[in-house]
Amino acid sequence: MESRSTRRAGRPSRPILTADAIHRAALELIDKSGADDFSLARLARELGVRMPSLYNHVRNRDDVISGMRTLLAAEIDSSPLRKLPWDEALAAWARSYRDAFARHPNTVKLLATTAVRTPAVLDMYEDFVLALEDAGWPTDQTIGLLTALESFVLGSVLDMVAPEQMIDLSADASRHPRLAAAVAVTPRVDRADEAFELGLAAMLSGMRRRLDEIAASAE
Amino acid sequence: MESRSTRRAGRPSRPILTADAIHRAALELIDKSGADDFSLARLARELGVRMPSLYNHVRNRDDVISGMRTLLAAEIDSSPLRKLPWDEALAAWARSYRDAFARHPNTVKLLATTAVRTPAVLDMYEDFVLALEDAGWPTDQTIGLLTALESFVLGSVLDMVAPEQMIDLSADASRHPRLAAAVAVTPRVDRADEAFELGLAAMLSGMRRRLDEIAASAE
Repeated sequence: MESRSTRRAGRPSRPILTADAIHRAALELIDKSGADDFSLARLARELGVRMPSLYNHVRNRDDVISGMRTLLAAEIDSSPLRKLPWDEALAAWARSYRDAFARHPNTVKLLATTAVRTPAVLDMYEDFVLALEDAGWPTDQTIGLLTALESFVLGSVLDMVAPEQMIDLSADASRHPRLAAAVAVTPRVDRADEAFELGLAAMLSGMRRRLDEIAASAE
Repeated sequence: MESRSTRRAGRPSRPILTADAIHRAALELIDKSGADDFSLARLARELGVRMPSLYNHVRNRDDVISGMRTLLAAEIDSSPLRKLPWDEALAAWARSYRDAFARHPNTVKLLATTAVRTPAVLDMYEDFVLALEDAGWPTDQTIGLLTALESFVLGSVLDMVAPEQMIDLSADASRHPRLAAAVAVTPRVDRADEAFELGLAAMLSGMRRRLDEIAASAE
């Protein structure tokens, strides 16, 4: 009797539980249901395992969030930060970063508001700081620039999953004539991509100018 | 018996239900519990009323979202768009926009991914387009610039509610020496504000440069 119940509890058809499988299941759960209610108890239910089984592989909720962050980071190409001139590097990295999160928009708020201690992401940040310092940026501005660029990227991710026609004037276009004219000449297809590229170009152009000023004042 | 049970169901101590009260309750519910599960059924439960009572005041879920957007818009000062030079106007508006959403960060994803048909917000967008057009911006770039600035603002809102020490190197600072040095010289207090101002200044500087180029090529 006992061995039979043990076998049943072991559920041999289920994939073997590993830390990586838990991280992937957590990401899938959030992709599907959002992150508001994310907890290890809910994740255990989703996996059909008991909490002690989870705790054999992960330490706590933060540990699982860090694991999800590793999965996201693996989808971001950070090699431009080590190869290209700093401004081209930031542009390429930002595009790849946006594409990766666009596949997991429900993670944006959770990951943007939880402290980063994921080695793969810290490696990426180290490359970011190095790329800026090598270009002549003062060290004390690098984290601010990183944060500003990430904020723009993550806000743009939400816009990517927004409706194509985000401004709906069907009720009263006559009350907003200039807005209606502007919407009419805005591309409907890829409008989020165009807005992102416009903002990215502006931000990088402004950064270049600031770096020129820093270099000039140091002479 | 019947009159007694009717009185009990009527709950006379409850405030009178109005569209505005429903919008405020929806915003409070999302502030408290997040927006993933937001539905009229949940809102009715929260208000302790039945669905038909809600439908006496609001048409549907979109209607309630629009009402919440009106409440948010009322917290944003859009007067700079009608008074200041375009770049100062955008900076002042972006700061006020960020402050308003920082009080309701759980609304960010929902409002950023639902089409806007709220009159108060469309009024604000009309002012935005007019401010840019008056400054010489081509009409077909105004919505892209609006979208890019909003993306940056909303991403920055999430960073505002993130931990003060967002990059946690306690586990392995030695592996990330330049990042550790950069974090050490980054202000811990107001780091989100400083990053926002750095990004805003860069984006507006880049926009000014682009406008100069547009003006020069038109001559």
